[in-house]
Order: sequence, then structure tokens, then C-alpha cells
Amino acid sequence: MCVLITGVAGFIGSNLAKRLVSQGRNVVGLDNFSRGEKANIELLMSLPLFTFVDAELSVLASYRQAIKSIRLSEPITEVWHMAANSDILAGVHDSNVDLRDTFMTTFNTLEIMKEFKIGLLAFASSSAIYGDLGQTKLLEDTGPLLPASNYGAMKLASEAAISAAAESFLEKAYIFRFPNVIGIPATHGVILDFVRKLKATPHNLDVLGDGTQQKSYLHVDDLIEAMLFIHNQSLEKLNLFNIGPDDEGVMVRFIAEQVLNAVAPGASISYGYGNKGWVGDVPQFIYSVEKLHNLGWKPTLGSSQAVALAVKQIVNQELGA
Amino acid sequence: MCVLITGVAGFIGSNLAKRLVSQGRNVVGLDNFSRGEKANIELLMSLPLFTFVDAELSVLASYRQAIKSIRLSEPITEVWHMAANSDILAGVHDSNVDLRDTFMTTFNTLEIMKEFKIGLLAFASSSAIYGDLGQTKLLEDTGPLLPASNYGAMKLASEAAISAAAESFLEKAYIFRFPNVIGIPATHGVILDFVRKLKATPHNLDVLGDGTQQKSYLHVDDLIEAMLFIHNQSLEKLNLFNIGPDDEGVMVRFIAEQVLNAVAPGASISYGYGNKGWVGDVPQFIYSVEKLHNLGWKPTLGSSQAVALAVKQIVNQELGA
Repeated sequence: MCVLITGVAGFIGSNLAKRLVSQGRNVVGLDNFSRGEKANIELLMSLPLFTFVDAELSVLASYRQAIKSIRLSEPITEVWHMAANSDILAGVHDSNVDLRDTFMTTFNTLEIMKEFKIGLLAFASSSAIYGDLGQTKLLEDTGPLLPASNYGAMKLASEAAISAAAESFLEKAYIFRFPNVIGIPATHGVILDFVRKLKATPHNLDVLGDGTQQKSYLHVDDLIEAMLFIHNQSLEKLNLFNIGPDDEGVMVRFIAEQVLNAVAPGASISYGYGNKGWVGDVPQFIYSVEKLHNLGWKPTLGSSQAVALAVKQIVNQELGA
Repeated sequence: MCVLITGVAGFIGSNLAKRLVSQGRNVVGLDNFSRGEKANIELLMSLPLFTFVDAELSVLASYRQAIKSIRLSEPITEVWHMAANSDILAGVHDSNVDLRDTFMTTFNTLEIMKEFKIGLLAFASSSAIYGDLGQTKLLEDTGPLLPASNYGAMKLASEAAISAAAESFLEKAYIFRFPNVIGIPATHGVILDFVRKLKATPHNLDVLGDGTQQKSYLHVDDLIEAMLFIHNQSLEKLNLFNIGPDDEGVMVRFIAEQVLNAVAPGASISYGYGNKGWVGDVPQFIYSVEKLHNLGWKPTLGSSQAVALAVKQIVNQELGA
């Protein structure tokens, strides 16, 4: 039985592939390197359990060609669809980015699964589908779902298409609503931004918004464990789970200070105005992971511990030890 | 100030256009006649307040060309986006139908509104976005939203894109979640199906499913009134409303009997098995219209009255008086 991972050269995809290969699973990875990087899968490429195919998944013909080109002794029985736009701001400026890289890759993944009779789909959704519900605790059944960004909108659109497919031809579907996920190889996100800004101007760090935006952060190692746990333990036809730490998160201010201490102690921090970093930013959310707890899983690191570890790892990635 | 109606030759679009023109509004209508029919707008075409342009709205270049071709003395300030696939079964067989006719027409409508600086969007969403939640009363904030058909999925995807646009460039958005809407000119739906089946085989009516599927039905005249009422009375940035009658609906069995009595009294009815008419059919839903009531609107006809009137109208449309 072989597992297909889309977006395998990305942050989550490459970590997932490493984990599955380490369990002895056969993994086929697809990526177009629009955001993923070759360096992230270099080690994997040397392993016999791993097969890579370069493919543009937003174009069905390219996707189909990629699947047909794979020669495997075992059939693909699962797709872990991690390919997506990960740059929320890019989608604010141009709606086509999330349409193409998030929604159309999902739509085409479903078309491919129908055509090649692959029954199980695991999908990387996002807390962004909830939009800005203020102080409302975000449970899996919370509504209305009014995403504030195209990023969140196209994740929700993908959930919707998967839900309809689960009623029709999919055997089993997992929708994982991710919080902010941090760790390495970092390709985007607030910690990487701060490290790079401080590398460019070591005396001062400019922060978008007033630094009071508060969000939960999960380390990627915990995220992978959570997904595999849910995949093994939750056996409904459609399995929908928030994944995150069991805390109210940390402020952007805390992250800025952690990065500053690690990269340029004594430098100043300039905050902007308002509690939104950008149009479509959700200043605060309170994420319920009760359903996941009830299934029996808890993360090893809370938000502040995850940030502390990821800051060390990303500083090391960007600046060397 | 001019109103743009997409899908103007369709069932809802043509009724809406007639109503707005009768109020003295300038209306521009777009359609590609994939499901809409020329006959539905023939009368309108002769009126100076109405302008029609043939356009394929799922193709942005065609949409843009249509908008540029319009020569109006007043600017377009509102879009009522009624264009969509209305054939749920077509979308069950081919996901591309709802992708193209429902979702991409919405996505492109948003692109056009951004480009041409049109601030207000009214959108025809659907109770199908809720999926099958059994006995749960469906309020606007009910979740999870797990649509059972591509029809519902692409309506939800459209809501999501509109929600993100409302955070970014739209001035005001109305999302109307329609129940089953009936009346004339009927282009699709259970009453029209039954009338046509009985016309073909007058001795017997074949019904998909066991006839116990229970749904609410609203007459199109009431629907148009409800939309205009909400548009005038609810002035949030994003206005989300269920529209429907205040009852638990009627069974398919009741509709079959009404049509039989009108077309072929004494003929037999053959029911199928199960309470789903097709894959993705939602056998029952209990729709809350409390929010709309609180705003101050109630329909003139309940579900059974709306069915009785629509049966008369559709029998007349199909078979003559």
C-alpha cells in the first residue's frame, strides 16, 4: 500500500513524508516547487521507499500524467493532500493564487481519486475557515463559517468539495483544521519573517500591527503525530478535527521578543497600529481541541514552548548554529 | 443607478428582473442560455429599462467583454448573482458542472466587481450548504457545513469567496440561503419533472425514493419579496439569511399526489426505495427562518400552499390551461 503526498517539498509535506518513510511506508511525493523547495526532500530522494514526481496539480492533465508515470509494485490507497498556497498575503493581493494552488489542486485531487479509484483522502484545512468570530470558542461545529481571507475561503471551498465527494465516491476522508504550525524547514510564517527582517536590519524589528494579535501555535512534530493518531483512531466516513495546543496561544509581541533575544539582543521593536497584521488577518481566536482530546491525543508542547523551540530551529536554519 | 443580474434568463433571475424593472430600476441582465431560456426574458427585452448581454460568466474575458460592451447613462452599483447550475443531478455525475457554472461564475463576479468598482453583491446561496444534519434545526450559524452534493459544495465555496471579498473590497454583501423555490417559468425541479413524466406516461408516475423526503418550498414571488426586504432592511456589511416558509415542509408524496390530481387523476404512483431521491439528496431538513422573521418578514404562502399554486402554474405552462 502506497501513500501519495501532494506538496511534498513544502513545510508540512516534507515532514510528513519523512515520518511515513521512517515507518516503512512507500511514499510517492508530488510538488511543483512553487513554494516547496528541493532541499526539503533531498534526503528523501535517496531512499528507495520514496518516489518523487514533478507535477502541476492545478492542471488536471499534468496531475493525471504524473500519476500515470509512476511505476509502483503496490497501488496508491491514500492521498495526503498538503499542497496549497501558504502565503496568505499573496492571496489578499491576487485571488487567483488561492484559487489555483489551494482550491483547484483539491478539486483535481478529487477528480484523480475518482478516476484512479483511490479511497482515502487526508486534507490540510485551516483554522482560517472560521473567520473572525471574536471571543467565540471555535469548535468543529461552530458557524457561520465566514473566512476573512481568500486563503481561508479556498480551504473552506476545499472542505466543501471533499464533503460532497465523501457522499459520493470517497471511502474515507480526514479534514484536519490546522492552527499556526511552526518548525523547520520553515518556508513562511511570522518567525521566519522576523528572523529575516532582523538579519537585514539588525538594530530594529518592524512588526505589522500592534503585536497584540494572539494565536495558538503547534510544533510540526506534534502536528504530524496528531494527524497520524486521528487517521488510526477515528474511523468515521468523514472525520473533521481541529488540531492545536490546548491553550489560548501567545501574542505576536512574545514571538517578536523571542526572535530578538535569539538574533539581536538589545535591538528595538517598532509596532504598527491596530490588532490586524493585514487585511484578512484574524487578531485572535480561541480554538477548541476538545474533540481531539476526547479521542485521546495531546501535544507535547504548548504554544509558548513550540514558539521557543521553533525560534531556535529557524534561527539555526537561517543563520547557522 | 443600475442593477446587474446574472443568470437573468433563469427561473429566479427572470422573476427578479421583472420585479426590479416594474419598480422603475435600470436592469442589465447577463446569461449564456445554458439553462436559462430566451422565452423567459422576451417581454423584458422590449422594455427600455432592460438591457441584455449574452456572456459566458465562467470565462473572465467573456464576462469583462460583456461589462465593457454595456453603454449606460448610469453606473452599475449592484450585482445580483443568480447564475448557477440548477441541475443537482448533473453535478453528481460531473463535478465540473457546479465548478464552472456555480463557483467560477461567482469567483469571476467578484473579480469583475473589484475591477469595475461595484460595491454591493447579492448572492443566491442554498440550504444545500448545510448537508444532511438530520433533525438539527438549521440556523444561519449552524455547523459543521458538510454539503452532500457538488451543488451544495460550490454554493458554500461561493459563500466563502464572498466572505473574504467582504473583508477586502466589497462594500456590502447579501447571502440568501434559498429553500426549494417553485413557481414559473419552471426550468427544473420536482414538480416540472412529475408533470413531464406524467405527460409521457399518463397511466403511472415513477417517483425516485419512497416519497417521504420532506422539504420546505417557497413560491418564487415570496422569495423575490424576501430578498428585496432583506436588501432594504438589513444593513450589515455581510448579511446572511435563510429564506423560507415557517413550516416543516411537505413530503414528496404530497407533491406527487397534487400533480397527479391535476394532470392524470386516477393514475398510479410507483415509489422507489429509501428516503433519498439520489446520491447527495438530503431526505429532510428543518429550516429556521427566525432571523428573517425577527427582521420583520413572513411569506404569504406556506409550503403546501406554494406547492398547490406552483402545480397549477406549471401544469398550465407545460400543458396549456
